Parts: sequence; C-alpha cells; structure tokens
Amino acid sequence: MKVTQVVVTPVAFADPPLLNSVGVHEPFAIRAVVQVHTDEGLTGLGETYGDDGHVAMLEAVARALPGTDPFDTTAIVRITAQTLGSATVRADLHGLTGAATPPKTLASVVSPFEVAFFDIVGKAVGRPVVDLLGGPVRTEVPFSAYLFYKWAAQPGSDDDAWGAALDAGGIVAQARRMVDLYGFESLKLKGGVLHADDEADAVEALRVEFPSHPLRIDPNATWDVPTSIRIGQRLDGVLEYLEDPTRGIPAMAEVHRDVPMPLATNMCVVAFEHIPESVRLDAVQVILSDHHYWGGLRASQHLASIADTFGIGLSMHSNSHLGISLAAMVHLAAATPNLNYDLDTHWPWKRADEDVVTHPFSFSGGKLTVPSTPGLGIELDPDALARLHEQYLTSGIKRRDDAGYIKRVAPDWVLRPGL
Amino acid sequence: MKVTQVVVTPVAFADPPLLNSVGVHEPFAIRAVVQVHTDEGLTGLGETYGDDGHVAMLEAVARALPGTDPFDTTAIVRITAQTLGSATVRADLHGLTGAATPPKTLASVVSPFEVAFFDIVGKAVGRPVVDLLGGPVRTEVPFSAYLFYKWAAQPGSDDDAWGAALDAGGIVAQARRMVDLYGFESLKLKGGVLHADDEADAVEALRVEFPSHPLRIDPNATWDVPTSIRIGQRLDGVLEYLEDPTRGIPAMAEVHRDVPMPLATNMCVVAFEHIPESVRLDAVQVILSDHHYWGGLRASQHLASIADTFGIGLSMHSNSHLGISLAAMVHLAAATPNLNYDLDTHWPWKRADEDVVTHPFSFSGGKLTVPSTPGLGIELDPDALARLHEQYLTSGIKRRDDAGYIKRVAPDWVLRPGL
Repeated sequence: MKVTQVVVTPVAFADPPLLNSVGVHEPFAIRAVVQVHTDEGLTGLGETYGDDGHVAMLEAVARALPGTDPFDTTAIVRITAQTLGSATVRADLHGLTGAATPPKTLASVVSPFEVAFFDIVGKAVGRPVVDLLGGPVRTEVPFSAYLFYKWAAQPGSDDDAWGAALDAGGIVAQARRMVDLYGFESLKLKGGVLHADDEADAVEALRVEFPSHPLRIDPNATWDVPTSIRIGQRLDGVLEYLEDPTRGIPAMAEVHRDVPMPLATNMCVVAFEHIPESVRLDAVQVILSDHHYWGGLRASQHLASIADTFGIGLSMHSNSHLGISLAAMVHLAAATPNLNYDLDTHWPWKRADEDVVTHPFSFSGGKLTVPSTPGLGIELDPDALARLHEQYLTSGIKRRDDAGYIKRVAPDWVLRPGL
Repeated sequence: MKVTQVVVTPVAFADPPLLNSVGVHEPFAIRAVVQVHTDEGLTGLGETYGDDGHVAMLEAVARALPGTDPFDTTAIVRITAQTLGSATVRADLHGLTGAATPPKTLASVVSPFEVAFFDIVGKAVGRPVVDLLGGPVRTEVPFSAYLFYKWAAQPGSDDDAWGAALDAGGIVAQARRMVDLYGFESLKLKGGVLHADDEADAVEALRVEFPSHPLRIDPNATWDVPTSIRIGQRLDGVLEYLEDPTRGIPAMAEVHRDVPMPLATNMCVVAFEHIPESVRLDAVQVILSDHHYWGGLRASQHLASIADTFGIGLSMHSNSHLGISLAAMVHLAAATPNLNYDLDTHWPWKRADEDVVTHPFSFSGGKLTVPSTPGLGIELDPDALARLHEQYLTSGIKRRDDAGYIKRVAPDWVLRPGL
C-alpha cells in the first residue's frame, strides 16, 4: 500500500468572542484538514492548525509523501525534516502554547500526517486506532468543561446563545449551562483576562456552585511569581491544579515551591527538549499533552511514558478544533493508562452544525465513547469540507491573531486591569 | 480474533564454558518458548528466561490470557499484574542484570507474551513487526562480537571449537575467529573474571589487533570505584564505552566524574523506576535496553524516547538466546532511530544446529537483515522444540546458576585473583 496523493485544505468555522490573555477569538477559527489517499482506495484524515505559514509547510510535505507506506510513520519524520530543513520555526502569533522552536515545528507538521496514516492502517486492518496504540485502557474518555470570559457577541452580531461572561456570576452561569448540556464533571477557567483576584473570585464561586467538581484555572503565564504564589495559596484546597500561572520553567519552579497544588503546563514544557530542565527543577507536576504539537500519537505515548517514569501527571490540551482532532484525542486518551485528568476541549464553543465529519461525537456525562469502527471511526463530509473551505476563503483570516483582532474591534479594552 | 491457548515450553541448548563475574556458564542454557494460539489459526512466538520460578509465573499468566485480543497488549500488563500480584519478585540467582524488583518482574513476565501478540498481529495484517512499531529506520542491524574468557571445554567434554581464552592472547584469537566468521565491526569483552589490569591488557591487545573496531568491556560491577576510575583513565581513547564497572547508581556517578568515556549499564538502570535517580546524578550515558526485562517492544520504544530526551545513548543487551529473541531484537532495533551502538548478542556461542526456528538468521558483515515477511519473520520447528524441551528435562538444570556450577566443577577457581 502506498500513498498516492495528500490534500491539505484550510477551513474556517464560526467561533464566539472568547477572551484570553492576548485578546479575543476572531469570528472564525481556522484549521487545516489533511486527506491522505492511497493506491488501495483508503483515505486517512488528519487535522491541525490552519495558519498560512503552517499550511505552506504542510503542503510542501504533502507533495513529498506520495510513494510512502502508511505503516511507515517514521518516514513522515524523515521526509518532514528533509523538506523543512532543521532550522524552520513556525510563526505563531498567539503565543498561547509556548515558544515555537525547530523541533516543535517539525513535530507540529508531522502530526496530522501521522494521524492520517494511523487512520489508513486502522481501516486497512479493520481496527480502531486505539487498537494500533496498544488497545483501550478505558472505553469512555472524560473531558473537562472549558470556561471562558467572553463578550455577549462578536462585534456586529447578535448575542450568541451563551451570552456575556465578564465576572464570577457570568462564569458560574456559563458553567451551569455547559454542565447541563454536556455533563462535564470537572471545570477549567481560562484566565489571564481580568485582575487575578477577580479570577480567583470566579474559581471560588464555581466551588460554591459545584462543590465536587475538580477545578482548574489557566491564566496563560500572565501572572508574576508573587501573584502566582498569592493566588495559589488563596486557592489551596480549591484547585485540582494551577495551569501556567507564570512564564518559563525557572519561574514555574519558584512558584511550585510556595503553592500547595500541582502546577500544570502547556506553555513551558511543549517539546521533548524542555523536559530535562523541567525535571531538574521540578517545575511542573502535570503536563498537558497535545498530539498536534508533540509529534503525533506515538510521540504522545512516549511523552506519557516519560511522565509516568518521572512521576509527572498527564492531562490533555486543546485548541479550537473539529471532529477529526477530537477523534484522534479520544483514541490516544483511550490507549494512555496514565492520562489521569479529564481532557480539555473547546468543542462546546463550536456550532453543532459546523464540522467536516459526517457524524460528530456527542457527549454523555462529559464523556465520549471510544469508537470501535476501523481507523479514527469518523467519515469526511466532502460538502461540509467545501463549505468550511469557502468560509475560510471569504473570512479573510489567514492566521490566528487574537491580539490584533481585539485592538481593531475594541481598542479601549484593558486586559488584566490593575494587575 | 481471540487468544485460545498459550503454551509455555522450557528448553535447553548447549552452552560453552563462558566465564563471568559470578562463575561459568553451565553446559546448557535454558530458555522458555511461548506459543500463543488464536481462534483464527494464527500463532505468535515469544522467548524469555527459562528459570523455573519464571516459568511458573509465565504459566500462571498463560492460563489467564485466553479470550484476549492480540491487538490488546495493554491487557497483558493488566492480566499479569492481576495474576502475579504487585509484590512478586523474580528469583534471580545470577544477578547479572541488576536487582529484581516487582516492576521489573512484571515487565519480564509481560514481555514474551507481548512479542507473541505482535507476531500474531503482524501475521494477521501481513506485515513484519517492524512496521507495527513505526516502520524501519534501517534495513540492517549491526551487532557486536561478544568475547568471553572461557575454558577450552565444559568439564568432562572434548575441547570446543573456540578453545580456551584465559589471557589477552586468547581473547584476541577468539575475537579474530569471531570477526572472521561473522564480520562483527565492534567488540565487547565480558570482564570481571581476571584482575582488572589483565582485562585492560586484553582490551589494549584488541586495539592493536583491531585498530578501528569500537571496543567495550563489561566487568559486571565487580570493580570498586578507585579501580573503575584507574582502568577508565587507562583506557582513555580505547573504549567506546565502559559498561557497569561498579555497582549502583551513586557509585557509577562517582566513576563518571573521573573517567573520559561514557558509562553504560544493564545493571543499575534496568527498569523505568531507576531512571530518575540516574538522570539526576548523570550516572550513566548509555543504557543497554533489553525487551526481555523492560516489558516488551513498545516499552523498549518508550525507553528509547526517554534516552533520546535526556541525551542518553542506547545500546542493546543480550543473554544467551535462541532465534525468537533474536528476531524480536532485530525488529525492535530496526524501528528505533536512536539505537546508536551495535547490539550485543550471544548468538555465536550457540551451536548452529540448535534452535527452535526453522531458518535461523545468518550474519553478514556483523549485521542481520530485517525480515520483511509477516510477523517476526520466523517459523517454529516443532521437532526442534520437542528435542530442546527433552534436553531441558534431561539436563536437570532448573535455573541458571553460574556460581553454584563453578563451585561444583572447579572449587579452586579464583575469580579476579589479586583484585
């Protein structure tokens, strides 16, 4: 079996005005869908970032992959390294998943092709991807609600169904709606938007409303060390973990020494090259894995083994995504014994009628059932792909830029007032 | 596809009187062959230690495996843990691969079944095992000659074809014969037998005779720290790496600070639980992996990723083994990018006419070609298996005991005289 053609299609889907430490989500989130075709008529699917610089790298590798054997995932690494050169760094305007480095860029480009290869192999052998990763250690994968401060509407649009959330009360109402709709049994608040104490108020309000839900907050490394320690100590007994309070491995290590809960990260340990320093300093106690930038499913399994070996917890990070990424996350999570925290997902923020797969997942009790059908267990909807690609073209968005967007639409908006 | 029956067969094959730090190889080496049968008529093969205590554990797990899906290798871990309990420790009389601990025991029992499951899956999908591990990064796997001090014959027998090797001249002659027969391009001397300086003489004599072959010596942790440092400094520029000069992670770290070459181990870092301390102290710079006790092929890939992440080199350890283990080693090595040293093997010490597979591998230029046929690429010879099992029964050897044997047959033998 050989790869015959690889098609990379950037797509856009509607996104609500979710606030974060650098700005606000634009009206459309962009992704790239990868289709890998073979001479045996099987097609594999992958999904990744849709930024134009990333898509250009994906397309260069896509041109070099025909002739490859879909079982040969190490060939993707070799071909990507040859195609990109060793010094390539992905442009990353949002900066929410740590610094881009050459190895992280390589891993990010490899990932969607590797997932698509696994999808093909699964279909070829009649097995779900989880079976190719060692078999399921769980049949259901639990996710966390992902709460955001947000405006009531994208500028110029009617209010969305979620309404505004700009204080503790708004966050609690949002959490209630999300838990009622999806059944999530843990809650994460994206912080770094208001004053740190106001965000701690929101966490405490969530605790009152949801006495038994594990809680997390992620200010995306916008707090200095004293603020991180102060908030961490204030939320003793309230937080399951504190995610990326401050920037960089040494500062995280400093915070860790003075706060009672584990520190988590998807910003300072985002590639294998970061692990030794973090281990040496005991900077983080939970790594949020993400197959999109760790290099695919197999690399994420290696990360899990490293975490297990060094006594580091493992959770899973999410960007705005469609059903292909969600399927890959579910198969990976199902095969990972030590994935001991509920996974992040932006899923509830996506319109239910916008996806590139024919039968999107649906949550029950905050969980997804691991597919038992061959490959990723999803099917591409070509009409939907065409629609979301057209939407990408008309959106005019070529790369994610939350910071530039908020400056355009709300120039007077003050992030973290008083902090 | 389900496992229907698992058969564990202890076997014995002739072994020459190879000397090591605890004694001498008995006239027969013992191993266990694992056959996993399925309802689809496919059978998978695994090979491991044949000690009676180990075989008893294998048999207990073998009884619990029917009904399992051969894709589900994590089920083996779960079932083995349930069957053995968490505190089980394998009895290990030879002590040449480090202390036995509950996790290492669990991993050792899991391993042959995991290899057999991979063999079945490969046959089921028509692919060599290397393809199930990510595809080949090399088509040939290079091995090292494994040189031993030895007697000319097992007591009571005629001299074997190799003759005696009890000094530098004998080792050089043995190396010459082995290189001529197999083409090995690197040389390892099993030490811990003579005085350390005499063994260093042998290494230097090898350097004269083989000016460009990478050289290693492994005294199996019998040297104290000052001796290790003295010999390490003496062999500066001569050794590719110094393997297990002394016992334990802290002592290895101490030696490392004062010797110029990397230190390798298959004694102090032999399970994932040992890695954090070794990393913290920078005790070893090369880990000799071994799927037989690291928990199988996938676990060995995780070990490789850990080594890569922490800048630790990777080589491969060998015990006396048959063709099933060799096949598994070759597939694993072929799929491991950072296996950057030639592998150990005891293969040349086995009689060519004794194996349980129909077509044993043959070396060319010290290398083996990675099989491209489905599964491990080997086939069991049932008559040979029956013969070697009969030999096991008549040998009377129930567990490897090099120390007890040398005391019986050569009570006056002095190990490491004067050291």
